[in-house]
Amino acid sequence: MKKIYVIWALSAASFAFSQLKTVERVEPAFWWKGMKNPELQILVYGKGLADNEIELSDGIQIKDIRKVENPNYVFVTVNTNEINVPAFKINIKKGKKKIGSYTYELKPRQSGSADRESFSSKDVMYLIMPDRFANGDEKNDSRPDLIEKANRKLPNGRHGGDLRGIINNLDYIQNLGATSVWLTPVTEDNEKVYSYHGYAQTDLYKIDGRYGTNEEYRELSRELNKRKMKLVLDYVTNHWGVSHWMIKDLPTKDWIHWFDEGEKGFYRSNYKTTTQFDTNASEIDKKYALDGWFDTTMPDINQKNPLVLKYLIQNAIWWIEYAELGGFRVDTYPYNDKEAMAKWAKAITDEYPKFNIVGETWLNTAGYISAWQKDSKTGEAAHYNSNLPSVMDFMLYGDMPKAFNEKEGWDSGLNKLYNVFTSDFLYPDINNVMVFFENHDTERWNEIFKANPQAYKMALTVISTVRGIPQIYYGSEIGMRGDKKTGGDADIRRDFPGGWKSDPQNAFNTATQTAEQKEFYEFSQKLLNWRKGKEVIHTGKTKNYIPQDNVFVYFRYNEKESVMVIVNSNEKEQTLDLKRFAESLGTVQKGKEILSGKELSLEKTLAIPAKSSMIIELQK
Amino acid sequence: MKKIYVIWALSAASFAFSQLKTVERVEPAFWWKGMKNPELQILVYGKGLADNEIELSDGIQIKDIRKVENPNYVFVTVNTNEINVPAFKINIKKGKKKIGSYTYELKPRQSGSADRESFSSKDVMYLIMPDRFANGDEKNDSRPDLIEKANRKLPNGRHGGDLRGIINNLDYIQNLGATSVWLTPVTEDNEKVYSYHGYAQTDLYKIDGRYGTNEEYRELSRELNKRKMKLVLDYVTNHWGVSHWMIKDLPTKDWIHWFDEGEKGFYRSNYKTTTQFDTNASEIDKKYALDGWFDTTMPDINQKNPLVLKYLIQNAIWWIEYAELGGFRVDTYPYNDKEAMAKWAKAITDEYPKFNIVGETWLNTAGYISAWQKDSKTGEAAHYNSNLPSVMDFMLYGDMPKAFNEKEGWDSGLNKLYNVFTSDFLYPDINNVMVFFENHDTERWNEIFKANPQAYKMALTVISTVRGIPQIYYGSEIGMRGDKKTGGDADIRRDFPGGWKSDPQNAFNTATQTAEQKEFYEFSQKLLNWRKGKEVIHTGKTKNYIPQDNVFVYFRYNEKESVMVIVNSNEKEQTLDLKRFAESLGTVQKGKEILSGKELSLEKTLAIPAKSSMIIELQK
Repeated sequence: MKKIYVIWALSAASFAFSQLKTVERVEPAFWWKGMKNPELQILVYGKGLADNEIELSDGIQIKDIRKVENPNYVFVTVNTNEINVPAFKINIKKGKKKIGSYTYELKPRQSGSADRESFSSKDVMYLIMPDRFANGDEKNDSRPDLIEKANRKLPNGRHGGDLRGIINNLDYIQNLGATSVWLTPVTEDNEKVYSYHGYAQTDLYKIDGRYGTNEEYRELSRELNKRKMKLVLDYVTNHWGVSHWMIKDLPTKDWIHWFDEGEKGFYRSNYKTTTQFDTNASEIDKKYALDGWFDTTMPDINQKNPLVLKYLIQNAIWWIEYAELGGFRVDTYPYNDKEAMAKWAKAITDEYPKFNIVGETWLNTAGYISAWQKDSKTGEAAHYNSNLPSVMDFMLYGDMPKAFNEKEGWDSGLNKLYNVFTSDFLYPDINNVMVFFENHDTERWNEIFKANPQAYKMALTVISTVRGIPQIYYGSEIGMRGDKKTGGDADIRRDFPGGWKSDPQNAFNTATQTAEQKEFYEFSQKLLNWRKGKEVIHTGKTKNYIPQDNVFVYFRYNEKESVMVIVNSNEKEQTLDLKRFAESLGTVQKGKEILSGKELSLEKTLAIPAKSSMIIELQK
Repeated sequence: MKKIYVIWALSAASFAFSQLKTVERVEPAFWWKGMKNPELQILVYGKGLADNEIELSDGIQIKDIRKVENPNYVFVTVNTNEINVPAFKINIKKGKKKIGSYTYELKPRQSGSADRESFSSKDVMYLIMPDRFANGDEKNDSRPDLIEKANRKLPNGRHGGDLRGIINNLDYIQNLGATSVWLTPVTEDNEKVYSYHGYAQTDLYKIDGRYGTNEEYRELSRELNKRKMKLVLDYVTNHWGVSHWMIKDLPTKDWIHWFDEGEKGFYRSNYKTTTQFDTNASEIDKKYALDGWFDTTMPDINQKNPLVLKYLIQNAIWWIEYAELGGFRVDTYPYNDKEAMAKWAKAITDEYPKFNIVGETWLNTAGYISAWQKDSKTGEAAHYNSNLPSVMDFMLYGDMPKAFNEKEGWDSGLNKLYNVFTSDFLYPDINNVMVFFENHDTERWNEIFKANPQAYKMALTVISTVRGIPQIYYGSEIGMRGDKKTGGDADIRRDFPGGWKSDPQNAFNTATQTAEQKEFYEFSQKLLNWRKGKEVIHTGKTKNYIPQDNVFVYFRYNEKESVMVIVNSNEKEQTLDLKRFAESLGTVQKGKEILSGKELSLEKTLAIPAKSSMIIELQK
C-alpha cells in the first residue's frame, strides 16, 4: 500500500504550495426545490477550506456541518424546504473577512418528474458502447483537458464515438424497435489508457468531453423522450477511477477500501460475490470479494461511510432529475456493500416510485439472482431486502448458448432453456427481470454461432417473447461478430459500420446494408416492432410445455389474446401434434405467424422447419 | 386403458363365484391406545362386505362409516380415546345374523414412544439393498406364496439376501462407524420379475417373506436400538405394485391415477418434478409429472383421495410404532401430490415430534431442493410448506464427481464443490440435509474413479465433515464397483462379498478382506468412528475458504473445538500459507491430523500431498 499512501501524503502537503481558488468545487453544483427528501448535503471543496467559517445567505440555517480528516472538504447539510429563494450564497469567511463565495441554485422541478415512467417489460433495451457506435462530432474526439486521445487503430483506444453520433442515429434505433437505450458510462473517465469503457469514472457530475457535454446528454434523453423512448444511465457505485479528483485527494481515508497486503493498497477482488449471502463465508473471502478492487485502476468505494453513500444517492438523483432519465443499470451490483445499496435503492425509489433500477447480478442460478430482487423470499432467507426493483437473468444468459448448441437430453438442449424458467417462482417480480443473450462483457452470440442467422433468430425470438425486459447489444442486429476469447473485450466492442465518415460501408442506412446485415436487421426490426404493441408479451401470463424432440413450445396469454411461441432446435423438421396444447389452444383453429405473415391451421399438426422459431398469434 | 378396466370389471364380477371369508383383511390389523390423534380409520375387506351391517362390541361407537364404489370395502372410523377395553370385536351382520367377526386389539404403547429420537446429523446412515447384502436364512430364499424365486445368476433376480443376513452383520456395520441403517423397501413385492428392489409393494403391512417376517424386522430394529443405532424405513407413498391386492380390487376408481391415453390406463411420468413449483407449468405437464406412473408395474397412488391419504398416514405410523423405527426415507418425494404430502408429514411429526423424514428430492439446484424442506423461504415463494424435516442434497451429489474430475476454473474443480455450499442460506435447516455421493440409483463413486482409494477418501472426507447427515452405500467402504451405464441397476447392486455361504471371499471379516478392501475399509472405519463423537461436526458451524489452486479448506467449529478440513484435488502437492486462515486458526499453532494420527505445526505453512485430504483437530 506504499504508493497510494505517498499520494495521500503528497496531496495533503501540496496545498501549501498550490494556488487554488477558495472554493474549487461544489457538488452537487445545484439542486431542485420540492424533492420528497428535503435534506441536501453539499460538498464544498477548496484548499484548507475547513479552517474557515461557512455561512449561508438569506438567513438560511446549516443543519449539519461535517469536517473530515482532509481539511479541503466541508460537507454542509441544509433543509431545502426551509429555503424560499431560488438561489443563495455559500460564503466562506476567515474571521470576519469573506474570502470566497458560491451561488447555490435551487431550480424548479419539471412537472411530473417524481412520477416519471421508467423502463419495464414493455420495452426493449438497446445497449450501446458510445465510443464504438457513431462519431457525430469529430471535434471532440481528442481534447486538451483529457489525457487519452482518439486513435481508432488501437483496439483498446478511444475511437471517437459520441453522444452526437447516437442522437444522429435515433431513427435507426427507433426503427429497429428498441424503446430504451442503455449507454455504458459516459461520465468523465480520464485514465491514460483504456478509458473508452468509462467504468473508471473521474468525475461523477460531468459527461466525458469526448462524448459531449452534460447538455448534449440531456438533449439525447429529451430526444428519446419525444419518441416515447427512455435513456438508461449505467451507474457505478462500486468503484471510481484511480484518477478521480476525490481519489487523488481523499476526503477521508475510509472513502475507499485499502489493503495491508498487495501493492499500493490495491488488492484485486476475488469476484466471488456468493459470499454476500453465504452464511459460512470466511471474513477474509468476504472482504476481498466486496472490498477488493475490481481492477488496478478502480479503487473500491466504501459505501458504508455515510458521507459516501449520501454522495452516491444525491449524484444518482441529480442525473435523473437533470437529464430526465428513464432508468438505471447498476454496474457490479453484488460487489457493493449490500446494506448500503439497499438504502441507495430505497432513497432513489422513494424519490421516484416508478423508477426502475436493474442490477448487474452476475450469478449462475435463480436462487442467487432472485435474492437480489426487492422483497424476494430468497433474499429474506438471508435476512436481506435489496429494495432493487430489477435484476439480470444471468442464468438465462449462461444457459442459452449451451441450450442451443446441445442435443436434447434430460437437462441439455432446450430442456436447459426450459429449466431456467422453472425457477421463476423464486422471483417476486419475474416480469421485472432483464433477459439477454449477450452484452458488452460477454462473447457475442453471433460469434458463438458463426453469424448463423437461424441461431440469431431463435435467440431473439426467445428473449423477445419470454417474461422480462429484453436487452439487445448494438451491432448484433446486423450480424456483428467479435471474439472475446482471441481478441479480448475490444473485439466484442467493434465500431458499428457506418458510424464514422471514413467507413467504407454504412449499416445504419438500410439502403446500404449488405445482404447479410439486411437479413439480421429485417428480422430484428419485424420482431421488435411487433413486440412494441403486444401487451400480451409485456405483461401476459406464461404457459410452458416441456420440450420434446428439442422443440420448446410456450404460450403468452392474457384475457384478450394468446400467442404461441415454438422453437425448434432440432436438426430436422419436427411435426407437432397440437392435441398436447389443448389447454392453451382451446377452440382456436388457426393462427398467424408474425415473422412470415402466414396463416396457419392449428387443427391437427404443425410442421416446424429445422433450427427455426415461430410466433403465432392465435385467431379466436 | 382397456386392460386394467377389464381387471376392474372382472374383479367386481368375480365375487359372485368366489368363496371368500366374510372378513378377509383388516388394516391396520391392530392399533395402539394413547396416540395423540385418537381417530382411527379401520379398513375392513371381504366379499360384498358393504351390503352387510357393521357393529362394534362393548358399546363402542362408530364415528364414521364409509362405503365406496367397490362393495368389498368398508372404512370404519372410531375414537380410540373412547375405547376402554384392550380388544373389541368388529361384527358383521346380515340382518340380525352375525356372519363374521374380527377381534381388534388396542395395544399399550411403549413408554417414550412418542418422543423417540430419530436420525440426525449426529448419525452416519448406511444404505443397504437387503436382497444383495447377506443371506442369513437360506430357507426363505424362495417361498411358495411368492412368485419370484431366488436365482443369483440373474442380475435382476432375487439373490436371497435377507433381514437375518443384516442382523448377523450388525457388528460389521457398527464397527464401520455407521449409526443408522436405511434399507430399501422390505415390504412384500410380489411381482413376477425384478421384485428384489421392493419399490412395487404388494402389501404395505407385511415384510416380504423372502426377507423375513414382521417380527424379524422388528428384531433388527431392536438390535440396532440396543446399539444406539436406528432403523430407517424406505417409505413409498407415490406408487404401489400393480399386483398389490388393493390395486387388483380397487376400493375406488380414483385410488390410483388413470389415463385416457397410453395402454392399460398407464402413462409414464415425464419425471419433470420442477412442475411442482413452476407457476407457468402447463396442466398437462404437471399431470403427467405427478400422476404419470413411475413405471409400468407401479400405478400412481392418488393421495388427494382422503381415504388413501389416511391409509398412508396410518400405515406409516403403524410401522414406526410397531417396529420402533428411527426415521423414514421417502421415495420419489416430489412426484406425490404436494398438499397431501404436507398433511402426511405433519400427521407423522405431530405424533412423533422428533421423528425425522428425509425426502428423495432429486433436483439439481438448491433453489429447488430447499423448497421441499419444512419452513423454507423458497417453499414460501411457491406458497408451500412441506412439513418435511429433511431433504437430500442432490446438488452436492450431482456436482461432486465433476468437482473432483475437473481442473480448477471459475466454477469448475473444487470451486464447483464450494459453490454448492454457498447456497446453504436457502435451507431453513441446513444440518438436516442428507449428504451423499452415491446411492442405489446412481453410478458408484468407485466406478467413476476406477476404485481409486484416494478419490474415495477425499469424497468420504467431504461428506463426513460438511453440514448434514452423511449417507454411505453398502460396499463402497470395501471399494466395490459396478457400472450403471453398461450393467444397469443390477451392476450397482452387486452382492456384498461374503454375504453368501458359497462366496469365495468374505469382506465382512476384516481378517479375510483383500488388501484393496482393507485400504478402503480401514480408512472408512477410522473416519466414521472419529465422527461419532464429534459434536463439532454434528452441529458445529462452518467456515469456508474459497478454493485456491484446487485446494478447498473449511473449518467446523463450536465453542469448544475446531476442526480444519483440507481437500487437495490438485495433481501436485500444494503448500498452504496458513496466514489466510487466521480468523479460524487464532493463536493455535498445532493440530492433530486424525487420519494419519500425525501432529502438525500450523504456524506458517502446511504441505498437502496431491489428491488427498486432511482432517486436523486444532490443539488450543
